[in-house]
Amino acid sequence: MRLVVIGGVAAGLSAAARAKRLDPSLEVTVLEKGEQVSLGACGLPYLIEGQVRDWRQLIGFTPETFRQLKNVTVRTRAEAVAVAHARREVTLSTGERVHYDKLVVATGARARCPEGCMALHSLEDGVRLWELLRERKPGRAVVVGAGYIGLELAGALRGRGWGVTLVDRNTDLLHREDAELTALLRRLLERHGIELRLGHEGEAPDAELRLHATGMQPNTALAESAGIEVGRTGAIRVSEHMETNLHGVYAAGDCAETRHKVTGAAVWIPLGTTANKMGRVAGANAAGRRERFGGVVGTSIVRVCGVGVALTGLSVAQAQRAGLRPAAVRIASRDKTSYFRGRPVTVELVADRGTGRLVGASVIGEYGVEGRINVLATALQARMTVSDLLELDLAYAPPYAPVMDAVLIAAQQLAKEL
Amino acid sequence: MRLVVIGGVAAGLSAAARAKRLDPSLEVTVLEKGEQVSLGACGLPYLIEGQVRDWRQLIGFTPETFRQLKNVTVRTRAEAVAVAHARREVTLSTGERVHYDKLVVATGARARCPEGCMALHSLEDGVRLWELLRERKPGRAVVVGAGYIGLELAGALRGRGWGVTLVDRNTDLLHREDAELTALLRRLLERHGIELRLGHEGEAPDAELRLHATGMQPNTALAESAGIEVGRTGAIRVSEHMETNLHGVYAAGDCAETRHKVTGAAVWIPLGTTANKMGRVAGANAAGRRERFGGVVGTSIVRVCGVGVALTGLSVAQAQRAGLRPAAVRIASRDKTSYFRGRPVTVELVADRGTGRLVGASVIGEYGVEGRINVLATALQARMTVSDLLELDLAYAPPYAPVMDAVLIAAQQLAKEL
Repeated sequence: MRLVVIGGVAAGLSAAARAKRLDPSLEVTVLEKGEQVSLGACGLPYLIEGQVRDWRQLIGFTPETFRQLKNVTVRTRAEAVAVAHARREVTLSTGERVHYDKLVVATGARARCPEGCMALHSLEDGVRLWELLRERKPGRAVVVGAGYIGLELAGALRGRGWGVTLVDRNTDLLHREDAELTALLRRLLERHGIELRLGHEGEAPDAELRLHATGMQPNTALAESAGIEVGRTGAIRVSEHMETNLHGVYAAGDCAETRHKVTGAAVWIPLGTTANKMGRVAGANAAGRRERFGGVVGTSIVRVCGVGVALTGLSVAQAQRAGLRPAAVRIASRDKTSYFRGRPVTVELVADRGTGRLVGASVIGEYGVEGRINVLATALQARMTVSDLLELDLAYAPPYAPVMDAVLIAAQQLAKEL
Repeated sequence: MRLVVIGGVAAGLSAAARAKRLDPSLEVTVLEKGEQVSLGACGLPYLIEGQVRDWRQLIGFTPETFRQLKNVTVRTRAEAVAVAHARREVTLSTGERVHYDKLVVATGARARCPEGCMALHSLEDGVRLWELLRERKPGRAVVVGAGYIGLELAGALRGRGWGVTLVDRNTDLLHREDAELTALLRRLLERHGIELRLGHEGEAPDAELRLHATGMQPNTALAESAGIEVGRTGAIRVSEHMETNLHGVYAAGDCAETRHKVTGAAVWIPLGTTANKMGRVAGANAAGRRERFGGVVGTSIVRVCGVGVALTGLSVAQAQRAGLRPAAVRIASRDKTSYFRGRPVTVELVADRGTGRLVGASVIGEYGVEGRINVLATALQARMTVSDLLELDLAYAPPYAPVMDAVLIAAQQLAKEL
């Protein structure tokens, strides 16, 4: 039995390694079109920032070490251009045909980038931008797209002395539909000298450097040409077993849809950490198991000008659109006791009036932001109500938290509104 | 209607403030035997360490500000010595009688301390020790009791240049019954020059300074003399509404029992953060509401020699004693990506083989320890299984976490054991 995996990044490698571990008799081949596998693309903005000293730090495994450690075949510069499922064959750009019994499609996402613009999606993009920044004197840069990559890039360029304008055709940052959050972040960005133009196309401002951090879409061309269905999100539709409409063909990672556990809807939220989870399940099932992946609650975090901005679940506007009746509070508190120099932290909670359930949250601050959003993400997955949140037994000691944590204070406020 | 609250620290003040807010017509009086209310006793070790510059930083509210902000009467140096519930009367040490309609007992805990030993329980203890340390040259100190206060004290004294021996008659640190955890912490303490003697009484070692951080017990004498029942833990037995066996008399905070949500058993785990939650519910119910407090999962955290040690739920030994069939893993990982200088973090998970449920966890590391233990505490409260943990949608970005968090890695390992 041979498992072929198309794509050698997070989902593909997770699937390959897990399948081989569960069934060592399986012959596993990873086909990767680029020269490297296991790229941590989330680190590219930190290469630009200077935190990552060498692009090799972004590579989890070389093809050789992955091959040796996991005992799977890894072929780089092997671009799959067609899948003939009736014959169980993948055709490479060279014309070579590779037979499979089971197939995992992990073709990722790609950035649509207009001419004259640079994107920051591939390792090549990152290295090119990094070299360009070393050669040029800081000038004026425009970053198009105010999602998390755009924000990270804007901060990184500003940190290198560039004048930065961040532009997005939408009126909200981070695709959150949350005017208050956008206003908070606008003040933060402007305090750090980053100009924000929302509701604008990026063409207008003059700049020496134009970076594109928008227009990401799932890479589904190969899958679609093979008769694999895509969903309304544009990404590959999969069952909770990560199987596509073709029997024995799985999809995982940034090319695939998943389920939003709060709304129940199919969503496309491409993230490395989700890709790993999807890949593990796809690999297990390709190896004969029957595991499931239930979906995500939409957690993300980004560091902007030294401040952590973390989101999970739905904003008020998103909850309304999902047919819920949201109640929300946003409270300002401190992340630690005063004598441990507690700094401001903002916690927003969104609940559904009908059920009392938590449906979304955001946390902004300098310290402990990831911990607080993770508690709320866990609570979302567990379908906790605001009453449940009031009883959270969170760790307390002066170096780590105030005796009444901001999450509890916010829950107490929200309980009054329900 | 008059509500009297005996005790002016966490539980008492929470109860008083909440009752008044919910029913402004209620006349609320807090009786506190000391001179100060609202002492954050958890900060006392940090006064010794030097992190807290002035004991006033440990006071949340002065009696005057609490009175003004919350509109309740606060009487200091008012020691309740008897309760006659038939007459609804509290008698003070001066002989004065104070009438109540509803009563909240929040008399806290006390430290049994043998002669010649100093404890670190009251503000007076803290100030006395702090002054002593300023006057004396560092010498040899013995700290008796290897719970979290003992550990904090040992670290604080070591940091001030004292030679420190930490002694406990038990063989485990932090009352955890976890030999591996104890071994990990022993190495940490010894690396920082703190000698550890477990399974020893504290009398043997010679020292210029002997500190007692053990023998805490609930302060129930007043309650018991009034006919209020105590449970098997020695603390006041309360319903989930925080009511004692006497109608209209509530108890909250370190003098009261609560329920352990993992085992269902009554437990006595005195902590400020739990005291606040209990006090809020006691106050609400004294004001005519019908709220409940479901209990705790046993979360705690302590910083020892710069390392965070956090626990929640049950250890393997505790799970066995509770009649469960535990499976456990302890994994070592990194708290962040390598290019953000990820540091070691150890995560232990304990699950019940019968149900697959998580029943306990510990996390040790320098960064993000409180966030990880809080996720696991939330999962415990939600009665999540290890399979549920595999799907946790935790926040990922390079400055905050690795793409596969230590919590997820531990859950993946544990899933193989079940």
